[in-house]
Formats: sequence, C-alpha cells, structure tokens
Amino acid sequence: MSAASSGLLRLFRRCPPANLAPYRHFIVADRHVGWVDPDFARVLAEFPAVFYLTDRAVHLHDRLDHVEDRSAAVADVLAKLHERGHVPGWRGELYPVNRRFGEAPLLLMERAATPMFGLQTYGINVNGLVRDGDRWKVWIARRAMTKHVDPGMLDLIVGGGVPHGIALADNLLKECAEEACIGPTLAERARPVSMTTMAIDAAEGLRIGVQFNYDLELPTDFQPRNDDGEVAEFQLWSLPQLEENLRRADDFMFDAALAKLDLLVRFGIVGPEDPDYLDLVAQLRRPAPFVRT
Amino acid sequence: MSAASSGLLRLFRRCPPANLAPYRHFIVADRHVGWVDPDFARVLAEFPAVFYLTDRAVHLHDRLDHVEDRSAAVADVLAKLHERGHVPGWRGELYPVNRRFGEAPLLLMERAATPMFGLQTYGINVNGLVRDGDRWKVWIARRAMTKHVDPGMLDLIVGGGVPHGIALADNLLKECAEEACIGPTLAERARPVSMTTMAIDAAEGLRIGVQFNYDLELPTDFQPRNDDGEVAEFQLWSLPQLEENLRRADDFMFDAALAKLDLLVRFGIVGPEDPDYLDLVAQLRRPAPFVRT
Repeated sequence: MSAASSGLLRLFRRCPPANLAPYRHFIVADRHVGWVDPDFARVLAEFPAVFYLTDRAVHLHDRLDHVEDRSAAVADVLAKLHERGHVPGWRGELYPVNRRFGEAPLLLMERAATPMFGLQTYGINVNGLVRDGDRWKVWIARRAMTKHVDPGMLDLIVGGGVPHGIALADNLLKECAEEACIGPTLAERARPVSMTTMAIDAAEGLRIGVQFNYDLELPTDFQPRNDDGEVAEFQLWSLPQLEENLRRADDFMFDAALAKLDLLVRFGIVGPEDPDYLDLVAQLRRPAPFVRT
Repeated sequence: MSAASSGLLRLFRRCPPANLAPYRHFIVADRHVGWVDPDFARVLAEFPAVFYLTDRAVHLHDRLDHVEDRSAAVADVLAKLHERGHVPGWRGELYPVNRRFGEAPLLLMERAATPMFGLQTYGINVNGLVRDGDRWKVWIARRAMTKHVDPGMLDLIVGGGVPHGIALADNLLKECAEEACIGPTLAERARPVSMTTMAIDAAEGLRIGVQFNYDLELPTDFQPRNDDGEVAEFQLWSLPQLEENLRRADDFMFDAALAKLDLLVRFGIVGPEDPDYLDLVAQLRRPAPFVRT
C-alpha cells in the first residue's frame, strides 16, 4: 500500500490548519476571544455603536459592559446581517464566548455566526460501538442532503455542538436521543475517552473546535434511528473497514474523521507500524488557542 | 476536593516544560537534532577534532561523514568524559540520533549521554490491566533503590527506552520478559493505544521523550515477577486508587505518571467534569520537537 496514495495524513492535508495571521483579533472586554476576516471586519465597522476597529483587532464596544447588553447588541447586528445574507444557516442557538471552557461567558452569540468571529467552540462526539466477538464494530451515519454543513457526508451517529446553558452530560443525553434515538439509560453508559482539536478554514468561516469524544457500547440488537430527518442512513462497519475508508475516501466530515482516527489509534488498529503514526497522533490534538499546553 | 491541593495539573507543575532557549542547538550533518547546555558545550569544545562551537550551536565535525565514523568519534569522547565523571549511569546501549522516528540514524550514541545532548528519545510503556467485573485494575511497580534514575519511585510494570537495532514490537516482547516475566504469547496481546510526550529538565539533563503507550490485559491469576533486581515490588491497584495517588502524591516517575493519566483519560475515570480536563489532556501530548503538528 503506497503511503502517497493511502497514508492517513491525507486527512489533514485535505483540511490543513488555518493560517490565522491575516485575521484580526476579536476582542471582548479586553480579552482576545476569536479571529475575524478583514473583509467581515469592514462589514462590522458599519455598526460603530457595537463594533470598532483598531489596527489589528475588532473590538466589541466597551460601553457594553454586561453579558446581556453585549449579547443583545450583537444579536441585533447579526439579525441585520442575516437579512443581508451574511450569516447563512441561522440556528437559533446561543454559544458562549469566553477564553476557558465552562467559565462565565463574556457574550452569547448565535451559533451560525461563530465561524465568522473565529470563536473556539466545543462539541461532543459519540462513537457507537458494538462488540463482535473480541473485536468491535462502529455505527456510522450519513448526513441528510438537507443539512447546512457538509450534506451527504459520513458522520458519527451522535455529535453536536455544546450550546450555552446545558451541562455537557445533559447535552450528551439530549443529542443521543435526538440524533439516534438512544435512550438515557443506554446513553448514560457513554464514557469520555479523549479530546481532539481542529482549526480549519471552512466555507462558513474559521472552524476552531475542541471535541469531547465518548465511546458508547451499544447492544448488538440496537438499531439507531433518526426522527428529525438529519440522517440519511446508518451503517455498521468493522474497524478495518473504517480504516480503509479513511485511507481511501474523503467521505467523512473533518471533526468526525478526527474522532474516528482517534478511535482507531486508541483501539490499536492504527499503530506505530504506520510510518506516519507519531505525526497522525500529534495532529489529532494540535494545540488549541484557549487550552493551556 | 479543592483543585489547589489535589488538581491533577500539579503533575505538570512538578515537571514543567523545559525552557530550551538557553541551550545551544546540537547539529549533525547540518540537521538540528538536539540541545546542549552551554557549560557542557564548553567541555565538548575541548575535543576540536569531533565537536566545534558556533554562536548558537554545537556541531559534530563535518569531516565525520558516515554514521560509523561519527559514532566511533563520539563514543571516544564520551568514554573520556565518563572517566572524568561527566556521563554518569553508563548503560552500554546505543540510541539512534535522527530527526524522524525510524529513519536511518545520523549517529549512534550511548544512552546515558542522550539527555546531555538533549536528544529526542523514544520509549514504550505498557499498562498491565486486569479485569475486575466491569472495571479494571492496573499493576504498578516500585523501582528498586539501586536504579540510577528515580530510585524507589512508582512506575509501570513494563517500560523502557527504544535503542538502536531492535524493532518496536520486538523491544516490547523483550521488555515484557525482562521487567515482569510476561511471556511472548501474553505480551503479543499488548495493543498500542496512544502517544505521550515530555520535555523536562531532569538531574541527568534534558529529557525530551516520546512514549508509545500500550494496554495489555493480563489474566486475573497472573503475577508479575522481576528477576533482574530492578523492581522492589508489584501492586495491583483500582483505577480510582491510581487517580487518588496521582492527585495526592509525587510517587510516580514523570513518564509513568503521563502514561497513567493518559490511561485514566482513555478509560473515562478523569473526564470533562474535572475543571482542568482540557489542559490535562493537552499536556499529555505537548508538541514534540521532531513530530509534525
């Protein structure tokens, strides 16, 4: 098998790390919390009561000194920009803006706008695993063609962003129920296993993400089901089948591909015999802007 | 439980990342392969046929243009320095010097000298795990008081450096046999699960290490045994007991502590409910000098 054609590092070449240098820092309450494209910064400058530009930064106006005021003022601007077509894929979901996961937010922002402000966002990924003798199989989902982001691509059976106002464990139960009809008794067996990170230029802007990955062992007779139309189909794959797909195809959403490669590493399917092993493992967890290494 | 007194980040505060700025680069065949303390660089300059100093670097002499010539010349210098007490803990084991794991070495160097040249070295760590219902226990070793490095400290039951001339899988079998009397049939069940990294100032010099971590499920009736006098005792711990120890004590060798914290993360014992979770996970795998992120 030639490394050039089928090395797993191709996953990372498809989505190389974003170069943040051309972006302006996004500053809220004197804290650097994101990165704004210079073109979008000029659009934001049309709202001087809310945003102002300095040499290398976009600042939220200092007169907005409480999370409620900041969030209301930004929501107002984003609604206007949404009408002008600037914030596609509106979700109606608020994401916290801060420098540390779990800290009190400085600002709450509509989810669809977070890539335009280069915010670091957090997500959960659940690997749905089924025992097969002394091996494992894994459930894979294909996203519906109607999804705003990455329609038709392969995905985890459960994954989602972590919005404001819900604990990680509760969000996990909620997503398990919504995305694959996994009830709470089963979902509570999910255990955290790793963190993966990404910072890429995507169609919707900068996706700077930290993913909490979970493994969930599902009964052999469990069949995931999706009721909200977001999933086209579910498939049960062997781990070598998953590896082969990651080597050959570009079918997976990038964050799902990271979670799946992380799974293959943790389960010893991809090991030090792979000449790219160390680079692969390192790239699953590149330093994230607001995580201390 | 107060985070100040028992947060797991204390492990990393005990062994903070080395500041490499004051060190001189060690250059072999125009490649930067390590870091040399300025005082030791002046000692090396006493051997101008082998080493020469430039402004910010220590170079191996360019007339030494094959791995055999380089290795012989360096071995000669190191033997003289060992006589003068400069290279304690002589091992009689050669480590490869290069910029990529598995690449042909530029130079082979006595293991005990590698921290003095700030070389990135590679090791294997094996977690010896025993099933206990739907939980796991883990074998812990206490190092003999006669060990050169970290005598009396807690360690994995199997771990060791990766010297020149032995494949990783063979080294794993060798170390399993030597360190815990784990036979090849059992040892072959070990599966690679992760990589951890470290770069710390230690008594013996700079320890820049990349560890390949393995999990090995051992039968409940297996009793590790050490015949070479390097281990004082073996203990079988529950994972909560391991967590409690890492929170409270400073008993583990640093690379073993990393492997054990990595185990607790992968097994969901330490999870996102820990306020330091993201920093902890990130610090298990800090960027290593010669691994591409």
